[in-house]
Amino acid sequence: MSDSKPRKRGGRRSPRVSGALPQRPFRQSRNPYAPIEVISADQVNAIHQAALTLLRDTGMRVLSEPARALFAKAGATVANNRVRFDPDMVMEHLRTVPSEFTLDARNPAHNLRLGGNHMVYAAVGGPAYVMDNDNGRRGGTYAEMCNYMKLTQQLNVVHQEGGGPFEPMDLPAHTRHLDICYAQITLLDKSWQTQTLGFERTMDCMNMAAISLGIDVEDFKDRPTLLGIINTNSPLQLDVPMSEGLIAMAEYGQVVAITPFTLAGAMSPVTLAGALMQQHAEAMVGIILTQIVRPGVPVMYGGFTSNVDMKTGSPAFGTPEYTKAAQASGQLARLIDVPFRSSNVTAANDVDFQAAYESQMAIWGALMGGAHLLNHAAGWMHGGLTASFEKLILDAEMLQMMDAYFEPLSVDVETLAVEAVDQVGPGGHFFGSDHTMSRYESAFHAPMISNWESHETWLKNGSVQAPERANKVWKTLLKTYQQPAMDPAVNEALLAYMERRKAEGGAPMN
Amino acid sequence: MSDSKPRKRGGRRSPRVSGALPQRPFRQSRNPYAPIEVISADQVNAIHQAALTLLRDTGMRVLSEPARALFAKAGATVANNRVRFDPDMVMEHLRTVPSEFTLDARNPAHNLRLGGNHMVYAAVGGPAYVMDNDNGRRGGTYAEMCNYMKLTQQLNVVHQEGGGPFEPMDLPAHTRHLDICYAQITLLDKSWQTQTLGFERTMDCMNMAAISLGIDVEDFKDRPTLLGIINTNSPLQLDVPMSEGLIAMAEYGQVVAITPFTLAGAMSPVTLAGALMQQHAEAMVGIILTQIVRPGVPVMYGGFTSNVDMKTGSPAFGTPEYTKAAQASGQLARLIDVPFRSSNVTAANDVDFQAAYESQMAIWGALMGGAHLLNHAAGWMHGGLTASFEKLILDAEMLQMMDAYFEPLSVDVETLAVEAVDQVGPGGHFFGSDHTMSRYESAFHAPMISNWESHETWLKNGSVQAPERANKVWKTLLKTYQQPAMDPAVNEALLAYMERRKAEGGAPMN
Repeated sequence: MSDSKPRKRGGRRSPRVSGALPQRPFRQSRNPYAPIEVISADQVNAIHQAALTLLRDTGMRVLSEPARALFAKAGATVANNRVRFDPDMVMEHLRTVPSEFTLDARNPAHNLRLGGNHMVYAAVGGPAYVMDNDNGRRGGTYAEMCNYMKLTQQLNVVHQEGGGPFEPMDLPAHTRHLDICYAQITLLDKSWQTQTLGFERTMDCMNMAAISLGIDVEDFKDRPTLLGIINTNSPLQLDVPMSEGLIAMAEYGQVVAITPFTLAGAMSPVTLAGALMQQHAEAMVGIILTQIVRPGVPVMYGGFTSNVDMKTGSPAFGTPEYTKAAQASGQLARLIDVPFRSSNVTAANDVDFQAAYESQMAIWGALMGGAHLLNHAAGWMHGGLTASFEKLILDAEMLQMMDAYFEPLSVDVETLAVEAVDQVGPGGHFFGSDHTMSRYESAFHAPMISNWESHETWLKNGSVQAPERANKVWKTLLKTYQQPAMDPAVNEALLAYMERRKAEGGAPMN
Repeated sequence: MSDSKPRKRGGRRSPRVSGALPQRPFRQSRNPYAPIEVISADQVNAIHQAALTLLRDTGMRVLSEPARALFAKAGATVANNRVRFDPDMVMEHLRTVPSEFTLDARNPAHNLRLGGNHMVYAAVGGPAYVMDNDNGRRGGTYAEMCNYMKLTQQLNVVHQEGGGPFEPMDLPAHTRHLDICYAQITLLDKSWQTQTLGFERTMDCMNMAAISLGIDVEDFKDRPTLLGIINTNSPLQLDVPMSEGLIAMAEYGQVVAITPFTLAGAMSPVTLAGALMQQHAEAMVGIILTQIVRPGVPVMYGGFTSNVDMKTGSPAFGTPEYTKAAQASGQLARLIDVPFRSSNVTAANDVDFQAAYESQMAIWGALMGGAHLLNHAAGWMHGGLTASFEKLILDAEMLQMMDAYFEPLSVDVETLAVEAVDQVGPGGHFFGSDHTMSRYESAFHAPMISNWESHETWLKNGSVQAPERANKVWKTLLKTYQQPAMDPAVNEALLAYMERRKAEGGAPMN
C-alpha cells in the first residue's frame, strides 16, 4: 500500500513573501548536534601515533631554507632538505594553538568566529575557469570575477569570500593578486581569504588589508583578519612559495589553514587510514611551523583527503570515501584541538543530479564531521577547476537548508500543541487554526530555488529546472547589488599602493 | 589561494571493470555510527508524555467497530467512535513489541533483518503515475509496472519491492491487487510490501504469499514475510479499510508499519514538536492495536512528518524540517523500542539538482536518524505522486554510496601504511607502489552513474547529464533481466487462486 497522497489545500490563504529573495539573515550557523564519529577513539589515536612515527623516522622534505632553520632552532633534525621531528617536540608546539578565534571583517557585523560549534561557509576559491548556463566553461575576466564577488557579498549565507573565485585571465599574472585584493576589499565588506603563494604576494595582500582597516600592518599582528590556504606538496613536501606564505602570515598574526591534498591512491596511500595518517602528519608539520614563528597565532587543520577513480586515475570528490575521510579528519583535528577546515566538493561535469549528491555527501561529511570552515562552500565544480555562477546559488540554497537544519527544535507547552490538536480534533485540519495562524509566516524555512508546484503547473510554466532558476536568481541579485560604502581616503590609499606595486613589477611567478 | 589542482595520471594502468554494471553485492547495510540526536532525552520524553496525555484526554476516532471492540476489551474507554487510552495501558501493550525481527523472502538469501543497526532499502510504492525521460509523466500500464519490478529485482542495493511502484491503470480496480501480487511474487525473489486497504485485499495478498512459500496461510502466523504500510488518517483518525488491514495482518503474524502522515501546518500542528507529538500518539495507537490482536507480532513505527509550503499549502519534502523530524522520530521510536521506518522523499518536478538535494536531506535524516526501513528508497518523485525510472537508478546510486559510507574504516598496520609512505618518500606518488597495486581493484566504491571525465572529454562525448546516463542504465538492466526460477506447481496454484478471486469479483473499492 502507498502512503496517503499529499493533500493540497491551496487558496485558503496566500501569505506572500515580498518580491525580494527569501534569504535568511547573515549569521553563522552553530552546530548543536554531536559530530558523527566514523572511527573509534583508539583508531584516532592509532592514526595520530603512526603520523608521529612517520614524522620521526621519515620526516618531511622542506625546500625553504628559512623554514628548515626555524625547524632546526625548535629542535628538529635537519639533514640536507629533510626534516625529522621528535614526537614530543611536535606535541609541545601544538599546545599553543588557540582552539577558537575571531576573524575581523571590514564590516564588524561580518566578523567571524572559528572554533567551538561555530561554522563559516566560504565561497569557492582558486579555479582556473568560470562557467554559467549562458556561455558554458571558459577562461574568466576581471569584470566577471567582480560579478562573482558581488554575488558573494549579496548571499547572506556565504560568510567569507574564498580567495578569488577564478583567475581573471585578462590581467597580467605578476600583478593580478593586487587587483583581486582590491576587488575583495571594495566590492565586499565581508571577511576574505588571501593569497599566500610566495612572500611578496602574501605581504601585498596583508598590506592592502591593513590599509582597508585603517591600520599599519604592524598593528595587524594581534588582529586576525586574513585567512590563507597552505597546501603541502603531498607526499611529505613543503615547497618554497608555500613556506614563505606560511611564515609571513604567521609572523603578522594572520591565519593559515594547513591543507595537505592527500588523494588516496595518487599522492597518498590507497587505504583511507594511510591517506589520513599522511594528511595528519603533513598538517601537523605546517601547524607547528606557525607556532614556531609566532606561538599562539591562530591556525587551522585542513582535511582534503579524497580518492581517485582507479579505472582512470581521475580525482573523485563527494564520494563515500570523501565523506568518511572528512568526518575522521574532524576527529583527528579535535584530538589535537585545532579548528578544522573541510570543503564542499564535486567532480561532476554539469550542475546536475550528480553535482548535487556529491556536494551533499561532502557537506554532510564536513558539517557533521565538525568542520569550522566549510571551504569552497558555494560554487565549486569540476574537481576545483571551475567556478559556476549557477552552482554558487544552488550551493547557497543547500547551505541555507543546513542553517535551518542546525536551528534547534523548540519543545515546550506551546510548540507541543496538545491543546491545539484537541481543538482541531479527529479528521479536521490545521490551516485556519489560531495555533497555525499565529506562526505560519516564520514556521518553516523558505527556499530560494526549490520549486514545489504541482506537475501540471510546472509544465505549464515551462518545465524550468533548478539550474535555470538559479540563473535567474544570480542575475536578479547582480542587478540589486549595492557596493558597501568606503572612506574615500582608504580607497585612495589602496589605489596608490597598487599603483606603486604595479610600477615595481608586482610579485615573481612561483 | 586555491588548493592544489587535482593531478590526473591517466593511462598508467587501466584496470577495467567488466562490462557488467559495477553493482555492490546484495547485502543489508548496517549502520556502525551513532544516530544523530536532534533533541535531548528530556525533549524526547516531553513529546512522549504529551502524546500520552493527548491519547488520554482527546483520544482517537476509530471508525471500525471491530477495532473499537478490541480496544475496549484491552481497557480503553470507548464513547461513540472515540477511543481514549490510559497511559499505563498504552505502555503495557508496547512492551510486547519485538525490537528486531526477520522478514522471509521467496529466496532465503534475500531474507531481511529489521531492527538493531540493520537497514532495509525498499523501492517506491503506491504512486498514481509513472515517468521516464522518453515519455514524461503518464498513467502507467501493467507491462510498465512489471518492467519497474524487474529493475527492482536487478538492483542489488534495493532489498525490498515497495508495494507496487505505480498503479497499472489498464487493469480493473477491483482485481488489480491480484495482478500486482502475482508480479511481485514471480518477477522477483525478494521481499515485497503488500496491500492492506481493506480485509479482502489483505487476505488475498497473504494467501498468495503463503502459496508462493508452499505453505498454508495458517502456517504463516509465525513466519513474518509481508510488510504493509498502515496510514492513520491524520489528525487522530483510524479508518475502516486501514483498521481491517491492520487487524488481518497482525492476526496472521505479518508486519505493518504504522505511519501517520503528519504534514505540519495541514494535518498536524505547524510546530514540529506538535507534529511529532501527534505522529507519536497516532503511531502508538496503531502499534498497540497489533499487540492487542496478537501480542509479540512484529510492527514498525513510521515517521512521515514534513511541512507544507506556507505560501501555497503544497506539501514539501526533503526540507530541513523533514530531516530534523526524521531524526527526532528515530529518537521517539527508540524510546519505545519499536523498529523505525522513514523515507527517501522529494517534491521536485524533475530529476534535477533539487531532486538530488531533497533526497539527500531525506536519506541523511532517515539513515543517520536510525531508520531500519528506508521506504520509497528508490524512485519516488513529485511528493509521492510519481515513480520515475531514472530516479530509481539514481537513488540506487546514492544508496550504494551510503552502503559504502557505512563500511567501517579499517585501521591497522597495513592500512596505516607508514612503511609504504616511507618507501614512496617526499614528492613521489603511489600509483605503482606495491601497497597500491595489491589493493586498487577493491580500494574504493565504484559508481554506476557518477561521471568523472575531464570536462573536455565529457563535452566530446556529448555532454550527457546524470538522468540520461540513468536512462541507459535501466534499459541495459532490463535487457539483462532473468526471471527467478519458480516451481511450476506453485505458479499454477497462484494462477488458479487469481482466477477464482477474479471470478468472484475481487475486492470492494474503499
